[in-house]
Amino acid sequence: MTINIAVLGYGTVGSGVVEVINTNHDSINKKAGNEINIKYVLDLRDFPDDPVQEKIVHDFDIILNDPQIRIIAEVMGGVEPAYTFTKKALLAGKSVCTSNKELVAQHGAELLQIAKEHNVNYLFEASCGGGIPIIRPLNSSLTADEIDEITGILNGTTNYMLTKMAQEGCEYAEVLKEAQDRGYAERHPEADVEGYDACRKIAILSSLAFGRQVDFHDIYTEGITKITAVDFKYAKQMQRAIKLLGFSKKVGESFYAMVAPMMVSPSDPLYSVNDVFNAIFVHGNVLGDAMFYGRGAGKLPTASAVVADIVDEAKHLERNIMSFWSSKKLELADVGESHRRFFVRIKGTPEERRNDVEAVFGGVKYVQVPGLEDEFGFVTGIITEAEYKEKANRLGGVISMIRMRNL
Amino acid sequence: MTINIAVLGYGTVGSGVVEVINTNHDSINKKAGNEINIKYVLDLRDFPDDPVQEKIVHDFDIILNDPQIRIIAEVMGGVEPAYTFTKKALLAGKSVCTSNKELVAQHGAELLQIAKEHNVNYLFEASCGGGIPIIRPLNSSLTADEIDEITGILNGTTNYMLTKMAQEGCEYAEVLKEAQDRGYAERHPEADVEGYDACRKIAILSSLAFGRQVDFHDIYTEGITKITAVDFKYAKQMQRAIKLLGFSKKVGESFYAMVAPMMVSPSDPLYSVNDVFNAIFVHGNVLGDAMFYGRGAGKLPTASAVVADIVDEAKHLERNIMSFWSSKKLELADVGESHRRFFVRIKGTPEERRNDVEAVFGGVKYVQVPGLEDEFGFVTGIITEAEYKEKANRLGGVISMIRMRNL
Repeated sequence: MTINIAVLGYGTVGSGVVEVINTNHDSINKKAGNEINIKYVLDLRDFPDDPVQEKIVHDFDIILNDPQIRIIAEVMGGVEPAYTFTKKALLAGKSVCTSNKELVAQHGAELLQIAKEHNVNYLFEASCGGGIPIIRPLNSSLTADEIDEITGILNGTTNYMLTKMAQEGCEYAEVLKEAQDRGYAERHPEADVEGYDACRKIAILSSLAFGRQVDFHDIYTEGITKITAVDFKYAKQMQRAIKLLGFSKKVGESFYAMVAPMMVSPSDPLYSVNDVFNAIFVHGNVLGDAMFYGRGAGKLPTASAVVADIVDEAKHLERNIMSFWSSKKLELADVGESHRRFFVRIKGTPEERRNDVEAVFGGVKYVQVPGLEDEFGFVTGIITEAEYKEKANRLGGVISMIRMRNL
Repeated sequence: MTINIAVLGYGTVGSGVVEVINTNHDSINKKAGNEINIKYVLDLRDFPDDPVQEKIVHDFDIILNDPQIRIIAEVMGGVEPAYTFTKKALLAGKSVCTSNKELVAQHGAELLQIAKEHNVNYLFEASCGGGIPIIRPLNSSLTADEIDEITGILNGTTNYMLTKMAQEGCEYAEVLKEAQDRGYAERHPEADVEGYDACRKIAILSSLAFGRQVDFHDIYTEGITKITAVDFKYAKQMQRAIKLLGFSKKVGESFYAMVAPMMVSPSDPLYSVNDVFNAIFVHGNVLGDAMFYGRGAGKLPTASAVVADIVDEAKHLERNIMSFWSSKKLELADVGESHRRFFVRIKGTPEERRNDVEAVFGGVKYVQVPGLEDEFGFVTGIITEAEYKEKANRLGGVISMIRMRNL
C-alpha cells in the first residue's frame, strides 16, 4: 500500500523532511510497513529549479479535500494559519505531525483531544529538542514513573552563545554578532535570547509530564541578554558552567516552572552539554536521573524527528497512540516561593561590605576573581526568590544575580 | 478491565517490579488504561514475612495454564529455564517482557518472531541500560534514520570502578574490593570486569539497529582487568577519560563491533558519564549525534523499565509493536581491519627509543608523565588493529595499549 502525505511549508524543516524521505526511502518504508509518498507540498512560493515543484500546491483545500492524503506534516511555524489547517485536517480524519512549538504550546491540549476523538494522531516530537527523542519517551517509556522534574537546555542558539562566551571570554554583543553571521541566530534574536523559545518548549514538556495544560504565559522567563564576560570569570572561578535552563518541578503538591540562566556544577550531566547541542534531564520517582542529548535544531535533525512521527502515524493510521493532557490549566505556584541558592555580584570589596552582606544574608560563600578590584561575589544560603529580592534591595550595590541550579 | 500479570522471579528486579507497581499504582493504571494486577509471583522460595507470599507459586504451569494471565514479566536472568518459560508463554498467546540480557542476546530473534506470529509482544527495555529508555527509542523514534554507530557505557559496575580509579588514583584490585564491599560488584565479578555483560548488551542493541542477528560470540571483547593506576596518570596527562565501551559501527558495507576500554576526549558526550551511570551514544545519518543517559542498573531503575514494558503490553494486548530482527546472522568484519589510533606505553626513555618507535610507527605523539622515569607513552597515527599488532611485536618493550575512541 502507498500512504500519501502532504508537507505544509517548504522552508528549512520542510525541505529537510523531503530530503530525509528521499535519502532513507528504503529503510523508512520498511519501518513504516508501507510506501510513504509525498503527494503535495504546500507553499506560497514556486520552486521552478527544484524537483519538488511538481508537488507544490498553493491552496490548502486541495490537500484537505484529497481523501488519499492520510498524514500531514505541518512545518510552517507560527500559530496561524497552522492552527486552522491542523484543526481542519484532524477533523477530516487525517493525522498531523509538527515541529511547531508555538502552536503546540498554545493549542496542544485541544488538538490532541480532537485527534483522539477522530481516532487519528497529532504528534510533535520535533517541537521540543529538535532531533532528540523526548516526547515519545515521555509518552511511552517513562510510564512506570511519576515525573517530578524536567530541566532542559532547550535552545541551541543561546547554548552556542554561552559556550563561546565561556571558552573565549568574549562579551554578549560580540558573540551574538558572530552567531548571526554564522546563521545560528536570527537578525531579530529575541525569541532565542530572551528565552521565549525555551519557555514554549518547557511548557509543552511540563504539560505532557504532569498531564495538565501549563500555560507558557505563566512561566517566569529570563533570557541571557544581561550575561557578561565578567559573569563567566566568576563561573570559572567556581568551576561552574552558565546555561540557559527551562525547568519545571513538583515539590510536594506544588508545581514550579522557570526559564533562566543558571550556574551548573560539573557533576551535573547538563554541565558538559555544549555548542548547539540540547539536552533534557528528567527525574522520575523510580527511574532516578535520566538525560536525553542531541541536536536541538537544524534542518536534518529536526526533519529526522518529523519523519519519525510520519512513520509512527503510518503504522497507526486508525489508532490514537498519544497521551493527551487535560486542557484544565495547571496552576503554577508563585515562583517567589521557590527555594535555591543565588550567586550575587556586588560593588565594593569584601573588607568594606562583609558586615553588610552577613547582616542581610547571614552566612554566605565569597567568590573573588583575581584582577577584579572593585567588586566581588558571594553565594547565598538556600532562600526563596522573594526573600532574595527583598534582601538584595536592602543590601544595595548588587551588580547582577545568577541562580544556582545545584545545591 | 483488570489485566492480570505474573512475575517470574522474586529477586532484586522482581521485588522492584512489585514495589514499583504498588508505589505508582494510580498513575500506572491511568497510563495502561486498565488496572494492572499482579496475580502470581513465581519463585522456588517462600517469603512468609512478605505480603507477596499470597501470590507466590512454585510451578510455572499454574501461570501458563491460567487464561487470565495476559502478561508475564520474566526477571529471573540466565538462559534456562527462562527460555523455555518465555517460549511457552508466547506460544500460548501471552506477552512477555524481560530484563534478561543473556536470553535476549541468545534467542531474541526467535522469541520476537514467535511473538509476532502470535500477535503478542516480547519487550526487553530493561535488558540494555537498565532504566534508560533505549530499546523503544531505537524501535520507534529513530525510524527516519539509518543508524551507523552505537557506542555505550553499558556496565555500571566497571564504570564505577574506572571513575574511582580516575578520581582517587587507586589500583584495580583495591577498587574491585571496594566495589564488592559496597555490593556494586559480585564476588565472581567476571561478567562485569571481563566485559561479557557489555558484550551481550551491545549485541542486542546492534541486532536491533542493524536488523540482523549479531552473535555476541563474534564480538571481540576485552575487559578492564589490566587497567592500572599508571594508565590513569597518562590519561590525565592527555586530558582523557578511560571508559569501557561497547560499540558497533557500519563503515561502508562492513560492520565492526568490539568491547574494550578506550580513551575518551572531553568533547565527547561519553566523557563525563561517571560512577554507576550508563549512557548510549547513537549516530544516525540524518539525526547526527544523540545520547541517552541514566542509571544502567539497580533494583528500581531496572524495574522502572520492566514496568514501562508491562504498561506498553497492556496497551497493545493483541497488537505486535516491536520490530524484529532477522535471525539471519550479521557477519561482522574482521576486527583486525578496523582503523583507529592507539595509545601505547613502552619501556625506556624517548631519548633511547625515539628512533625505534618512529622507524616502526612513523609519526607519533609522545606522552610523558612526570615522575615516570623508565617508561613513556605515545599515540600512533590511524592504523588498523592488525597493523598495530604487527608493529607492536616488531617494536618490543610494549607495556600496555589502550585504544583511542576519538581521532
